[in-house]
Amino acid sequence: MRDSRYDLLFEPIKIGPKTLRNRFVQVPHCTNFGTDLPYSQAALRAVKAEGGWAMINTEYCSISPESDDYPRNFARLWDEDDVANLSVTTREVHKHESLAGVELWYGSIEAGNWETRMAGRGVSGGFDDDIFTQGVYEMTVEEILELQQLYVDAADRAMRAGFDVINVYAGHFHSIAHQFMTPYYNKRTDQYGGSLENRCRFLQEVLVKVRDTVGDNCAVGVRFGFESQRGDAGITASEEGYLIIQHLDDLVDFWDLQVGTHSNWNIDSAPSRTHAEGFNGTWMKQVKPFTSKPVIGVGRYVSPDAMLAAVRDGEMDIIGAARPSIADPFLPKKIEEGRFEDIRECIGCNMCIGSVWGVGSRLICTQNATAGEEYRRGWHPESFSTAGNSDLNVLVVGAGPAGLECARVLGERGMSAVHVADAASSIGGSLDWIAGLPGLSEWRRVLDWRSTQIDKLANVELVLGRRLSAQDILEYGADLVVCANGSSWDATGHNPLTRAPLTGVAEQVIPTFTPEQLVRDGANLPGQSVLIYDFDGYFMAVSIAELLAAAGKQVTIVTPEAEAGGFLHHTGEFEPVHRRLHELKVQVRTSSTIEELTSGGAVVVHGLTGDREIVGTDSVVLTTQRNPNDDLYRDLTSDSERLEAAGITGVYRAGDCVVPRRIVDAVFDGHRLAREIDSPDPRTPLPFHRERIVAPPGAALPLIGTWQ
Amino acid sequence: MRDSRYDLLFEPIKIGPKTLRNRFVQVPHCTNFGTDLPYSQAALRAVKAEGGWAMINTEYCSISPESDDYPRNFARLWDEDDVANLSVTTREVHKHESLAGVELWYGSIEAGNWETRMAGRGVSGGFDDDIFTQGVYEMTVEEILELQQLYVDAADRAMRAGFDVINVYAGHFHSIAHQFMTPYYNKRTDQYGGSLENRCRFLQEVLVKVRDTVGDNCAVGVRFGFESQRGDAGITASEEGYLIIQHLDDLVDFWDLQVGTHSNWNIDSAPSRTHAEGFNGTWMKQVKPFTSKPVIGVGRYVSPDAMLAAVRDGEMDIIGAARPSIADPFLPKKIEEGRFEDIRECIGCNMCIGSVWGVGSRLICTQNATAGEEYRRGWHPESFSTAGNSDLNVLVVGAGPAGLECARVLGERGMSAVHVADAASSIGGSLDWIAGLPGLSEWRRVLDWRSTQIDKLANVELVLGRRLSAQDILEYGADLVVCANGSSWDATGHNPLTRAPLTGVAEQVIPTFTPEQLVRDGANLPGQSVLIYDFDGYFMAVSIAELLAAAGKQVTIVTPEAEAGGFLHHTGEFEPVHRRLHELKVQVRTSSTIEELTSGGAVVVHGLTGDREIVGTDSVVLTTQRNPNDDLYRDLTSDSERLEAAGITGVYRAGDCVVPRRIVDAVFDGHRLAREIDSPDPRTPLPFHRERIVAPPGAALPLIGTWQ
Repeated sequence: MRDSRYDLLFEPIKIGPKTLRNRFVQVPHCTNFGTDLPYSQAALRAVKAEGGWAMINTEYCSISPESDDYPRNFARLWDEDDVANLSVTTREVHKHESLAGVELWYGSIEAGNWETRMAGRGVSGGFDDDIFTQGVYEMTVEEILELQQLYVDAADRAMRAGFDVINVYAGHFHSIAHQFMTPYYNKRTDQYGGSLENRCRFLQEVLVKVRDTVGDNCAVGVRFGFESQRGDAGITASEEGYLIIQHLDDLVDFWDLQVGTHSNWNIDSAPSRTHAEGFNGTWMKQVKPFTSKPVIGVGRYVSPDAMLAAVRDGEMDIIGAARPSIADPFLPKKIEEGRFEDIRECIGCNMCIGSVWGVGSRLICTQNATAGEEYRRGWHPESFSTAGNSDLNVLVVGAGPAGLECARVLGERGMSAVHVADAASSIGGSLDWIAGLPGLSEWRRVLDWRSTQIDKLANVELVLGRRLSAQDILEYGADLVVCANGSSWDATGHNPLTRAPLTGVAEQVIPTFTPEQLVRDGANLPGQSVLIYDFDGYFMAVSIAELLAAAGKQVTIVTPEAEAGGFLHHTGEFEPVHRRLHELKVQVRTSSTIEELTSGGAVVVHGLTGDREIVGTDSVVLTTQRNPNDDLYRDLTSDSERLEAAGITGVYRAGDCVVPRRIVDAVFDGHRLAREIDSPDPRTPLPFHRERIVAPPGAALPLIGTWQ
Repeated sequence: MRDSRYDLLFEPIKIGPKTLRNRFVQVPHCTNFGTDLPYSQAALRAVKAEGGWAMINTEYCSISPESDDYPRNFARLWDEDDVANLSVTTREVHKHESLAGVELWYGSIEAGNWETRMAGRGVSGGFDDDIFTQGVYEMTVEEILELQQLYVDAADRAMRAGFDVINVYAGHFHSIAHQFMTPYYNKRTDQYGGSLENRCRFLQEVLVKVRDTVGDNCAVGVRFGFESQRGDAGITASEEGYLIIQHLDDLVDFWDLQVGTHSNWNIDSAPSRTHAEGFNGTWMKQVKPFTSKPVIGVGRYVSPDAMLAAVRDGEMDIIGAARPSIADPFLPKKIEEGRFEDIRECIGCNMCIGSVWGVGSRLICTQNATAGEEYRRGWHPESFSTAGNSDLNVLVVGAGPAGLECARVLGERGMSAVHVADAASSIGGSLDWIAGLPGLSEWRRVLDWRSTQIDKLANVELVLGRRLSAQDILEYGADLVVCANGSSWDATGHNPLTRAPLTGVAEQVIPTFTPEQLVRDGANLPGQSVLIYDFDGYFMAVSIAELLAAAGKQVTIVTPEAEAGGFLHHTGEFEPVHRRLHELKVQVRTSSTIEELTSGGAVVVHGLTGDREIVGTDSVVLTTQRNPNDDLYRDLTSDSERLEAAGITGVYRAGDCVVPRRIVDAVFDGHRLAREIDSPDPRTPLPFHRERIVAPPGAALPLIGTWQ
């Protein structure tokens, strides 16, 4: 049970008419489930309520079709059907005695309105500072009052959907209530512009009207971006941030405070590469004394002691979390039960954001393979059924992310014995050396947590320092074999564009190296200059560039893409990485390929212009593609009679040895296989529930009346 | 009625067991409706069947969860619910005596599998040449046979969904059947790789198996990319393209032929900027003689005579169309009825593709505002209800795209009188001079078609060369007023990033110009060098750069974005435009802003590095933002008593004078207002039908059994 030292974190706290049962709150975060995938939404939030979070918020929830972020699948409270769909979430959250909160959003200049094709209202007229084609018109005072009524109507719907908490969004400059507050957006000369009081008037009036609507049925708070880190274009905690809090304090039941804006969201959802746990502390302390209301703060907290310190030191009253609650929905419960070592700590890779905001896909998580799969695949993060074939034992070959996760889940599912063998003397596979790259040390948590869990599972055993051949495996005595042999960087320069080796590599006219040779094996590069040929598009080429440049090399990246490491935009790492590369004088040649290596250098061709240049270099690092280590799997599966003779009834593969992908994919792949190890065909994932309407048999097209 | 000269286009033609009633086919094209928005899908296709297309195809339709293009909303035949949803489309298409076709797709290396999180099978292992993180594993022969079974299962579902035609997709290298055909993807050394016969074996076997499955219930054809324009990395019509057609000819009922691949799709869906109508003719003629089966070809045909020539000249037997069928779903019917002047010709702007593929949003069309709105708003492209307030007369101020479209639809809806007034002596607003920019002449079709339609409407009258003041309007005698005054480029350098004028512009330390001054008014630029400050992100800055550079100026574009005119990627215009700018020696400084203009030049700052440089220039063109011409609307609506006294019961606005947007938005906005001119509040769009599941009252979370 809980150490009394942490009691403070479990003290109930009143927010207006409602009471939080403890100090843990899941602040609003995106999922791409919105209201249109109501069961995926409800199941994800329900699991967190069960895991001990005292308040569970939706993602940003649009109050009107005028604020439409399509094709993103955000939440909506436009009509009664939206009420019905969000009601599923509130009911499930209430079953676990948590409060359900909704974040009311009107994006204005931040909404593209691609679905509704409507024009949005603005504080002043103008265009978004990220997407210049998104514009709004300046509201008249009458139009401001109409907009406030849209907030009121949405609050009424929220109340009827069962929400306990109305969180009025005034953060990230992603919401019009926030845009009103700064002269950067607000050029008005009437009672809604000018003085700070005037700039706060819109939100002030909304808060009064919303409270009039919901009465004591809901607590009313504000998610407020009090520190923009945008200079004159934003709000500064020590200048107007604390004044706004003071000014509106009587009107709120709580504050949900955040830093950064939509365009520098990476200081709010900060990656572990640039920000450590508790990164907001200094700013929070600047404003906390100016409110008498409970304050929710964030800081990617995963350590109970850091949380305790944040509350004790007066940074916040309530620990807010988005990413840590995705990586471990049961974080509060595990603290309560004193199971600290079981906390599945967020690694700050931001793949959740990358998938949802970058790609526009579903919520995923590197640490928690069940995130987003609660409803559609019926996966619970902490609960496992005993496998139908649990009498079998399993040999997992490869102790990287896929192998470890597969073994762990097989262990949880009660297989009679699970052995995880690896040729290396330590676990981790490629992640073992990747976590040593600049800024990626927290990624090792993927290995640490699985190592700890496997230690606790009596039926799972690590067999390290042992390279198993096909023959070894046939003789091992396993019933099932899972190949999780990972991948290796191609040493020939074979790449996705030419689908052929790079001329000159075989002859080594210039010495070439793979990332493994360089980082894992510690190869020394000859000379001063090095050229990196990059088809990775994510962290590998830029990380190696940073590593080598910091060690004094003159580094040039050549990439066929428009930018080196473009996926880092999706994870909030692009700008800091490229600033660092610039400091280190790394050159980046974009939209370029290497035609061949010659003794004089690399022949670099520009894709658009066709310009050709020989770039001299002492060595070349090839991050052109990874190849699956699938020899073992192919060997084993090539002869079914041999398997039968050995008593092996199934050989499967998981992770990079199927197709080299991201770590999040490898973990998912291992997890999926273990969850379905007793399905009719474990190779093929079981169908999942798809949330879409199905036309009844013989349905005619239900047209609106006749054609207009 | 039809001129007999065009009889050929209306001759029925047999494709296997089925007969096309004429020679017009809507080839597969995307909508983002897929199977999950079944009614939007069905209504869009139904309208085309009604409009005379003899065969209507779906977009690419995935045969298995292994081939998943999420978050795009493509069609699927994964399960019986997909059968139910696609059945709505086939039933609606059959009502109009057209055939329904489905395009069976397995993307392999082209599928990201973001929704299903599965690994895809490949001809050989490797990664996509556009998205380097998308990879596949090499199939064993057993896995090839499994994949063929997925085609068979999907064909069976298609047949049961009521499809008449199975179109096996082997085009764009977007489909594995196509990837098998070229050594660029196919590195196999078994019976599925090596010789051309071997490389065709996969599709050959699929065709045999699919036909065995569907028998005479469906025609079976192939959408084949016979000319890749990719050199050694593709298929060339004159080398292997015609041989493949010969080789498989006995197995198909028809050929649906296309050029280009996924990475150079802009020679297939070619923009009008680079390709004229009938652009495939030369290639089609190279292969047509080698088949005895009916051939469908495309070429953005909108002219009956060009279509006739294409059939007569042996380029194709059947006119295929995607974009022309979106711009005018009734194109065949209009030809049949001899109403050539009524054909709403595609302008080749590719906004349809930009919205669906680029943004990931719904199908839209610049020419046809009803495209994609057939179901959800109940709009029919050729059918209009009489307005409930048709006794009123309307004054539309502004004869640009929004005003013309609004007036046209108001006319169709039977308003007693509609006057369209413009200060200019010709129609068009800003599009009048935009269509004069390099490569954009076909955009004038937006104006030409509306002009023709308005001429035919007895109740609509153009009043040109007359600038109306608020007072003029009050005295005009109109019941309703629509302001469609457009927008103007900002002359101060005000931009979305600083939200302030640019220092030095007011003082004209360097002469500055707006696009209107330069292009519409013909201003002469002093000196040789010109700098364009670009926040447009689409066609304006690059078009002006091309115009000026072609006239001998030294042109530099400065843009805060990573690329100049990034939206042109979505329309297939980026590469040709930038190749042209490179030829013309236009310099592009990306990720850069101008801090101020000084007498020495523009102070240019790099966004990421902070590097600062003074760039000398003789003049500056400002494409920083457009401002709505909304003075008239604001003036008129500022005094309701004055309006009442004048007998004006409604003042509305549409198009750029609300918020400056793209032409597609302006046309839509004008159309929407006219469709809803008799709604309770025409300012606010009526709600539209949303196709999503709605949880029943009190619904619990329908979990899969208990949590696993």
